[in-house]
Amino acid sequence: MSHRWLIGVDIGGTNLVVAAVPYTGGEPAAVRSRPTSPGRGADAAVADIAEMAEEVVAETVERHGARREDFRGVGIGCPGPLDRRKGVIGTSPNLQWDGYPIRDRISAAVGLPASLDNDANCATYGEWWQGAGRGTASLVGVTLGTGIGGGYIEAGRLLRGTSGSGCEIGHMTIDFDGRMCGCGNRGCLEAYASGPAIAARAREGLEAGRTSVMPEMVGGDLSLVTAATVYEAIQAGDAYASEVLTESARILAVGLANVINVFNPEMIVIVGGVTRAGRYLFAPLREEVGRRAFGSAVEACTIVPGALPATAGVIGAAGVFVMERHR
Amino acid sequence: MSHRWLIGVDIGGTNLVVAAVPYTGGEPAAVRSRPTSPGRGADAAVADIAEMAEEVVAETVERHGARREDFRGVGIGCPGPLDRRKGVIGTSPNLQWDGYPIRDRISAAVGLPASLDNDANCATYGEWWQGAGRGTASLVGVTLGTGIGGGYIEAGRLLRGTSGSGCEIGHMTIDFDGRMCGCGNRGCLEAYASGPAIAARAREGLEAGRTSVMPEMVGGDLSLVTAATVYEAIQAGDAYASEVLTESARILAVGLANVINVFNPEMIVIVGGVTRAGRYLFAPLREEVGRRAFGSAVEACTIVPGALPATAGVIGAAGVFVMERHR
Repeated sequence: MSHRWLIGVDIGGTNLVVAAVPYTGGEPAAVRSRPTSPGRGADAAVADIAEMAEEVVAETVERHGARREDFRGVGIGCPGPLDRRKGVIGTSPNLQWDGYPIRDRISAAVGLPASLDNDANCATYGEWWQGAGRGTASLVGVTLGTGIGGGYIEAGRLLRGTSGSGCEIGHMTIDFDGRMCGCGNRGCLEAYASGPAIAARAREGLEAGRTSVMPEMVGGDLSLVTAATVYEAIQAGDAYASEVLTESARILAVGLANVINVFNPEMIVIVGGVTRAGRYLFAPLREEVGRRAFGSAVEACTIVPGALPATAGVIGAAGVFVMERHR
Repeated sequence: MSHRWLIGVDIGGTNLVVAAVPYTGGEPAAVRSRPTSPGRGADAAVADIAEMAEEVVAETVERHGARREDFRGVGIGCPGPLDRRKGVIGTSPNLQWDGYPIRDRISAAVGLPASLDNDANCATYGEWWQGAGRGTASLVGVTLGTGIGGGYIEAGRLLRGTSGSGCEIGHMTIDFDGRMCGCGNRGCLEAYASGPAIAARAREGLEAGRTSVMPEMVGGDLSLVTAATVYEAIQAGDAYASEVLTESARILAVGLANVINVFNPEMIVIVGGVTRAGRYLFAPLREEVGRRAFGSAVEACTIVPGALPATAGVIGAAGVFVMERHR
C-alpha cells in the first residue's frame, strides 16, 4: 500500500526548511535546510526551496517506497503578516519581501497545489497535530525567537481573522508609552521579550559593569551576546544571566496573562530556543502569570514547552494544507 | 401560526432586564427592568427575574397571541468570569455573587431550560445576530461601562475558551507597571478606559483647577462627576471634557489595536453609553488605532457603535440560547 505525502516548507528569518511529511501526520521522512538570505531576494529563496523539495521527494521515493504522484501538496509557513487569500507576503518587520506572491511561486516551482500560513500558525498547528498539544480542545502557540508570534486553535481549527493576520501576540501593546518596536508601534511584547530584546537587556547590564561569565564567552565583544549566550551562561551558574532571564520571563508573563484572559485556552505551548532555559524560564513565568490573569483561567491552562523543537513549523505547514483541504 | 419565543435575561451591575424575544430574532415583544441590588443577594435577584419573566410572558400571550408553551428557554447574560459548563458565577470584581449557580436557579424559578454566558458575549452576539454586525464573518464586541468586556464571533460562533472566561478584553495589560485594577492586576485596559476611569481622570484635572462647566453641572460636588457628565459637558462645548475624552479614546485605542492584532476582525462594535460621545470618541480612537495596529488589519476592520444600545444584551442572551441548541 502506498501512502500519501506532503511537502512542508518553513521559511524562517534564519533558515529555509523543507520536509516530506506523511499526509496523516508523523515524523518527516526527509528534511533539508539552507540558510535564508533575504538580501538575495524571494525568487532565489523559491529556487532553493524547489531544489530542496526535489531532494526530499527523491529521498522519500528511494527510502520509503513512495511514488512521486503520492505527493499531494505543499504547505508553506512564512513570517507574517500575510494576505492568505491571495497568498502574498505583507509588510513585515522581519522579512522584507513585501507583496511577493510566495504561495503561487512555490506552487509553480514545485508543481503541486500549495497552502500558505504564517510561521507561528504553522508551529502552533504542528504542536497541536503531532506535538505537545495533541488532543487539546483549545491551544495557543507562542513562538519565541527573533520575533514573537502566536496561533490559536479551537476545535481543531486555526483562528482566522478577516485578512490573515490574526494572533499577532508579539504586537500586543503591554506598555503604551514604552519601547519602540520594529513594527512602528510602542511597547509591543516583542520589544521586551524576543530573543534580541533579551540579548539587549543582558548587554545593558554588562556594559554597566555587572559581573558575569558572558563577556568571556563572547571574547569580550558584547555585540556578540545573544539570547543563546544568556541560556548558556545560566547553565554555567551565572547569577546575572539568571536575573536577566527571570526579568524577561516576567515580561513574557504579561503577554501570556493577556493571552489567557483573551483566549482562556486549555494549553499554551511555547516554541523556540528559549525553552531550552527550562525551569529558569517556566518557574518565574508561571508565577507571574498567576499574579496577573484570572484565577479560573490560569487554573484551566497548562503552560508547556513545545515537543517538536526542530520540526513543529515544517510539520505544521504540511498539516495546515490538510486542514484547509478538509474544512 | 404560533411562533416560538425565548426569555432573555440581562443581569447588569445597575439593572436587571428581562425580555420576550422571538426565537428567530427581532425586536423584543415585552421588556421589564428593575435595579440590581447586589447587596440583597443573588436569591433576591433570581426572584425579581422570575417575576419579570412571568410579566413578559403574560404580556406576550396577551398582546401577541403567543401561548405559554411557545416559550422554549431562558438565555441569561451575567457579568463574568463564569464557569459556563456548571452555570456558576466566578470571582468577579463587579458583581459579588461568587460561586452562585445562577443558571440552574433561574431555570428552576422560571421552569424552562436555560443557557448562561457573560454579559459581553451576549451583547456581542446581540449585535451580530440583530444589530450592527449582521452578516459579518468575524466580529469583536467591546462593552464599555462600569467595566470593559468583550466577545469574539467567527463564522457565527462565539469564541469559547476552556473554562468560559474568554475575551476578557478589559483585563488585557496595556501598561505592565501601571494603575491597579479591580481584578488585582496592574495596568489593565479597564483601569484606564472604563466609565469610572474616565470620570476619575476628569476629576483629577478638575481638582487641579482646570476650567470646565463640569463642577457647575454637579453642583460643585466633584464626587458626582461620572463619564456621562463628561459626555454632557462635551455637548455643551466644554474644551476640558473633550480633552479628557480624547485621552481616554487614545488609551482605549491601545486596547482595540491589541484586539485587531490578535483577532484581525472584520468589525469591532463598541457597546455602551460611551458611544453617545460619537465622533469625539471615534475620531481619536480610529486615528490612534491606525498608528498602533498592523496596517492591513486596520484597513480590514470597521469600528462602529452598536445599533442596539438598550437591548443588545438581552437579545443576545436569548440568541446564545438558540446558538447553543443548534451547535
